[in-house]
Amino acid sequence: MDTVQKALEYSRANRDRFIRELSEFIRIESISTDEAHKPQIELGAEWAAAHLRKLGIQEVKLLPTGGHPVVYGEWLKKPGAPTILVYGHYDVQPVDPLELWQTPPFEATVKGDYLYGRGSSDMKGQLMAILNAIEAIMRTGDFPVNLKFLLEGEEEIGSFNLASFLPLHKDLFKADFCLNPDAGAISADEPTITFGLRGLAYFEVHVAGPVRDLHSGLFGGTVHNPAQALTELISGMHDSNGTVTLPGFYDSVRPISAKEREETAKLPTTPESYLQQTGVPALWGEKEYTPALRTGARPTLEVNGLLSGWTGPGSKTVLPAKAMAKISCRLVPDQNPQQVHEQLIRYMQEHAPKTITWEVKMLHESPWAITNTENSGVRALAAAMETVWGKKPLYRREGGSIGVVAMLQNIVGVESGLVGGSLPDDNIHSPNPRLHLPTWYRNMEEFIHFFFNMK
Amino acid sequence: MDTVQKALEYSRANRDRFIRELSEFIRIESISTDEAHKPQIELGAEWAAAHLRKLGIQEVKLLPTGGHPVVYGEWLKKPGAPTILVYGHYDVQPVDPLELWQTPPFEATVKGDYLYGRGSSDMKGQLMAILNAIEAIMRTGDFPVNLKFLLEGEEEIGSFNLASFLPLHKDLFKADFCLNPDAGAISADEPTITFGLRGLAYFEVHVAGPVRDLHSGLFGGTVHNPAQALTELISGMHDSNGTVTLPGFYDSVRPISAKEREETAKLPTTPESYLQQTGVPALWGEKEYTPALRTGARPTLEVNGLLSGWTGPGSKTVLPAKAMAKISCRLVPDQNPQQVHEQLIRYMQEHAPKTITWEVKMLHESPWAITNTENSGVRALAAAMETVWGKKPLYRREGGSIGVVAMLQNIVGVESGLVGGSLPDDNIHSPNPRLHLPTWYRNMEEFIHFFFNMK
Repeated sequence: MDTVQKALEYSRANRDRFIRELSEFIRIESISTDEAHKPQIELGAEWAAAHLRKLGIQEVKLLPTGGHPVVYGEWLKKPGAPTILVYGHYDVQPVDPLELWQTPPFEATVKGDYLYGRGSSDMKGQLMAILNAIEAIMRTGDFPVNLKFLLEGEEEIGSFNLASFLPLHKDLFKADFCLNPDAGAISADEPTITFGLRGLAYFEVHVAGPVRDLHSGLFGGTVHNPAQALTELISGMHDSNGTVTLPGFYDSVRPISAKEREETAKLPTTPESYLQQTGVPALWGEKEYTPALRTGARPTLEVNGLLSGWTGPGSKTVLPAKAMAKISCRLVPDQNPQQVHEQLIRYMQEHAPKTITWEVKMLHESPWAITNTENSGVRALAAAMETVWGKKPLYRREGGSIGVVAMLQNIVGVESGLVGGSLPDDNIHSPNPRLHLPTWYRNMEEFIHFFFNMK
Repeated sequence: MDTVQKALEYSRANRDRFIRELSEFIRIESISTDEAHKPQIELGAEWAAAHLRKLGIQEVKLLPTGGHPVVYGEWLKKPGAPTILVYGHYDVQPVDPLELWQTPPFEATVKGDYLYGRGSSDMKGQLMAILNAIEAIMRTGDFPVNLKFLLEGEEEIGSFNLASFLPLHKDLFKADFCLNPDAGAISADEPTITFGLRGLAYFEVHVAGPVRDLHSGLFGGTVHNPAQALTELISGMHDSNGTVTLPGFYDSVRPISAKEREETAKLPTTPESYLQQTGVPALWGEKEYTPALRTGARPTLEVNGLLSGWTGPGSKTVLPAKAMAKISCRLVPDQNPQQVHEQLIRYMQEHAPKTITWEVKMLHESPWAITNTENSGVRALAAAMETVWGKKPLYRREGGSIGVVAMLQNIVGVESGLVGGSLPDDNIHSPNPRLHLPTWYRNMEEFIHFFFNMK
């Protein structure tokens, strides 16, 4: 029996124990957004560090950040072989609304093919799939490549402190490839590699008119209502095709290649699947792109919030003094959040009427990330998936943003391969999250093959 | 000395006592919107009833309504003479924010020419000006006309129960003219008659898209954002001139007569005064009308509130499932709130895209009111003002709505003359409301002349 086979068999023989260990990890209420859970967050970091030590990882330590600690680990016994950086996060989302849970959030519960519990998917489960694969290889033979670990505790709150932490530890995290299991698969039968993530520029737009709220009867008709002025400004930010009208918005957007159009056309994310997932009466957006391209490869401008005047029950005849919108843009290569900020300001300068004053605040920015699908890490992953599933993986871009991917690319110079076993119906971030165990087992085997493929 | 002169002198000689009695009335915390103040509201009604009895009003009673009681009174000893219905309200606005008050809200405090306290203006003060004028005539001679009283306790909460109360008491409130001192004057030196009030139609417009809030990264670009769709719909409700675009909106709007344009041009409500009062950088609205006509004689459509998605601090990348706007129209003769409701629905039918669903709810309606300035009551008022101020009054429409005026007109068939001594800087509905005592004294004399003029 060859080394790969031995590791695969080990991973199959130890599934029950793997479930018990994952259940232990899930029991730790490592909710990163909640100050009250800080001791549990630290427990989560310590549990992960202890588990790395159990696997035989040489050096394991908790590195302080401006917030929750990063777990670092390294196993560098293969001089000359590539170094793989394993990324994971040990923090989880909050659990409200609690009344909608069918099992206790932090008590892992197996029902049929699923293991339920907060973090089972997204991503204690996915992280453990990699660690179990590493254990299987370590216990049955010689590990083929070098390893580093970056396990953070703030992914669910935007990896807030990572941007200032990574520049201080650039050399520590240098690697040939980052294996990031925090993405999802399109379905249990369709292995998926995510090679692109959109960036983000998040703004508040404030419009102000009169110095105080006015009586709409006494002044209505002669004062430009700030709420109305805001709707006029926002409605002009798209044309009738759904294309964004900020000046210069598309100037640096890379055209979509024929190859990508072709690859994307293979995805099962059809107009029908979008209709079904969202429940909208009809889809919307740029006609010249498919929905999958519109959400992955095209930039967008969204209204995330609107607030003005009286919003409680009943009727109050106020002419509001001000109005506010939260507006964010998803960005694609080669857009730049700061440039989009300037474009939004230019739009306001060109379109805001003299009857109101305005202000644009930038609240948050996050760069896009794109991985070259021809790099050796992605090719090793694709080959591993083909071995386990018996079919080539699908390649897609995801419309969301995962902070660490762009940070590793831009700060440390490491490209990430985004894979993972979370499925669209795993209820991540919602009550009753679950992990599909057959996919989890396949993920372990995929990772075993991946490490050997990287040799 | 003639009877008019005797009454005037009586009113001058008793000013200090009148201030003490008004201070007693102000001490009663008759806040109508607050259930906790119900005993105080009843005390207010009883105080007003007792005061009417002291004046010698024959029959005084508290009539129950669906809410706070109406104080009714009558003095009908002049067969053949006209009957004047005196309208007033004994309720007041709440007092928050309390920290902005410079004197205790319910402790009348005289400083220089002003008496401070909740209800000093709007309208315990204005009501007492009429009752003091009546007392002055009653005590010094023979009252020249018949009197009825309608003192309500719900004006500050929209005269909610009056609409169901009045039809049951139509005959009781029949009169030749209603003297309503609940309007304001343009300034202390400019006696003002308000002859028109705008009506109101108040709506909520709801727009819905996906069945739940979506991740803006995963779906942005392919789902029509309901907040954005709402801004597109609202921004289309006015054209670039500020004219409302609801289909048929102006069909039943009476053209403004040359005489009214001329009268309105005499008002000191200039563009500059509107700029100064509101603090806006520039005025807005239909260019072909002056600001005073735009706020009084033209109908409007205002956004009173906007709500969608995430409006708390920071950035949440939600693609909201729904968006809501509070929208109200001020109406002028001969518009009808129900017709405007239908026009708004037609607008939505014509303009709402297929990518969202929508609903329009009507929350409140109130008809416009207009008084013929040639009727004998208005002429008697105008003559009284000219006698006291030495100049003819200004005639204006007010942009707001006072429920009782239209109700008396439509249900009982009584026209109102809207006068009153509240001044633009009286801070009504705000902290530190105040009554300008020199104007108050003039009002008493004006009302004395008015009653004699009606003879």
